[in-house]
Amino acid sequence: MYYIGIDLGGTNVHAGLVDEKGKLLGQAEIPTPKGAEEVADAITQAARLTAAQAGVAMGDVQSAGLASAGSIDPENGMVLHAWNLGLDHVPLARMVSERLELPTLLENDANAAALGEFVAGAGRGYRSLAAVTLGTGVGCGAVLDSKLFTGFNYAGMEAGHMVIHRGGRPCTCGRRGCWEAYASATGLIRSVREAMERDPDSALWRFAPTLELVNGKTVFDAVEAGDKTAEGVLEGYLGDLACGIVNLINILQPEVLCIGGGISRQGEKLLRPLREVLDREEFTRDSPRRTRLCVAKLRGEAGIIGAALVPVYR
Amino acid sequence: MYYIGIDLGGTNVHAGLVDEKGKLLGQAEIPTPKGAEEVADAITQAARLTAAQAGVAMGDVQSAGLASAGSIDPENGMVLHAWNLGLDHVPLARMVSERLELPTLLENDANAAALGEFVAGAGRGYRSLAAVTLGTGVGCGAVLDSKLFTGFNYAGMEAGHMVIHRGGRPCTCGRRGCWEAYASATGLIRSVREAMERDPDSALWRFAPTLELVNGKTVFDAVEAGDKTAEGVLEGYLGDLACGIVNLINILQPEVLCIGGGISRQGEKLLRPLREVLDREEFTRDSPRRTRLCVAKLRGEAGIIGAALVPVYR
Repeated sequence: MYYIGIDLGGTNVHAGLVDEKGKLLGQAEIPTPKGAEEVADAITQAARLTAAQAGVAMGDVQSAGLASAGSIDPENGMVLHAWNLGLDHVPLARMVSERLELPTLLENDANAAALGEFVAGAGRGYRSLAAVTLGTGVGCGAVLDSKLFTGFNYAGMEAGHMVIHRGGRPCTCGRRGCWEAYASATGLIRSVREAMERDPDSALWRFAPTLELVNGKTVFDAVEAGDKTAEGVLEGYLGDLACGIVNLINILQPEVLCIGGGISRQGEKLLRPLREVLDREEFTRDSPRRTRLCVAKLRGEAGIIGAALVPVYR
Repeated sequence: MYYIGIDLGGTNVHAGLVDEKGKLLGQAEIPTPKGAEEVADAITQAARLTAAQAGVAMGDVQSAGLASAGSIDPENGMVLHAWNLGLDHVPLARMVSERLELPTLLENDANAAALGEFVAGAGRGYRSLAAVTLGTGVGCGAVLDSKLFTGFNYAGMEAGHMVIHRGGRPCTCGRRGCWEAYASATGLIRSVREAMERDPDSALWRFAPTLELVNGKTVFDAVEAGDKTAEGVLEGYLGDLACGIVNLINILQPEVLCIGGGISRQGEKLLRPLREVLDREEFTRDSPRRTRLCVAKLRGEAGIIGAALVPVYR
């Protein structure tokens, strides 16, 4: 059985062909054009390229899955708004389905990434997984009881928009104090910049000579160099990140919780302090069966592998 | 098909016999004794009484389900600690199963109540429900895709222990700022008492002449009487309650979310201000398909009905 997955990004359309175990047999990437028809055509082209590259006839492909950022309606296969792609209420799943002559489903990128990790990454061999991706926002997805969890209206797992600091930082969603406003890479960068403005002597300035140059790695580098201000920022960041993770574990108790995104490349530097909080605060801290915390295993491929398998696991 | 459900409380053992639709055909209640063997005997006696009362032979009963408060291990049917019942690591499901000669499962009371509401109460006819019970704590349970959701280790849905105020009030679980510390009846009573101590002229003192007499209704009565201090307390309480509800909806997107416990008897006085927050803050506030917020329909029966059907829906 073969499945095609497409990760629709602002820069590239990334397609992959996988088997039922999520093994990636072929990949293709082409630049993302502007406009609905053009995007559908590009997806179709990338899908055919990846099948050709894998040496698989399109007639042997079962289905296609699309993963997209932006505001989408997975139930009806609609991209509601994706301004950077020039898409506004586009029935993308139907348009691609007609072109490829394959059943085609649309899913949000965080859910697709979670499914990819479940099948072929950190969740392989387990029955449930929550995936947390630290990027511009905090993207979350979950597979529960070996099924992609979406909520009744396909809008679930927006755990980034769980308030942990009532009345705190404004969030893009309109609430205040959301986990995402603190634990995303964007949230961390904001905290680093605030600390740099308060402390002109901090070593943070050595790693980011201007505020614009701060990235998700800056604070880790400055802590490595022994900077106290950076240590304070990192401690606050890890506390907020851990707080939301404990909340999620207390609610979902997934077998595995994996963390992805650029910050997750810090590996044990990130996981060790998080585990200390989990050991102290998890409701199940004394239980023999606890959620396994780890970093995501797949990088750019989680989205295409997960997208490809949405028709199997939704 | 007949099922027996038992709600094991500190005061009474409450048993019921239901059909597969959760219709209650018989009930019996006997005082809870102390000690493991005694409790198992009392459960057995209550189960047989309820079957006799319903006119159903024990041979026609499929299974039994036990709902218990305290610290339990549903997977192994063990009551780990229930000090008020004198139980410490008791394999209660096995003990009852041997006595009744029926397959017997143990579940925590919040999950059983959620299942009862799903089958025979506020969730009837829907495919998913989250139940939030405002009592000593905030008890939560969920049925997702018509299956009782428990997490991989049967310890999920401890949403009361989701931090919403980082660094806030200490919680019984060891964290600070948990939803339960604010949104439970206990949390509300604490806030009312604090306000009364600050304001000796508040009308709250008319409805509760001493701090010990404050209950979950006091603040609603004083608001009704036009007391400004009470209004402030209620506004804070509803804000905290709504905050956790929006968090839960953003994560789980259940078709129905019902609120139970004494405070839920306030009905629209409780729901109207909560809906205002949901309309403003839910991630899906502009979506046509949103979670339906309502009060729980079953009172004391949710636990026995849900307990009875755990063997069907787990």
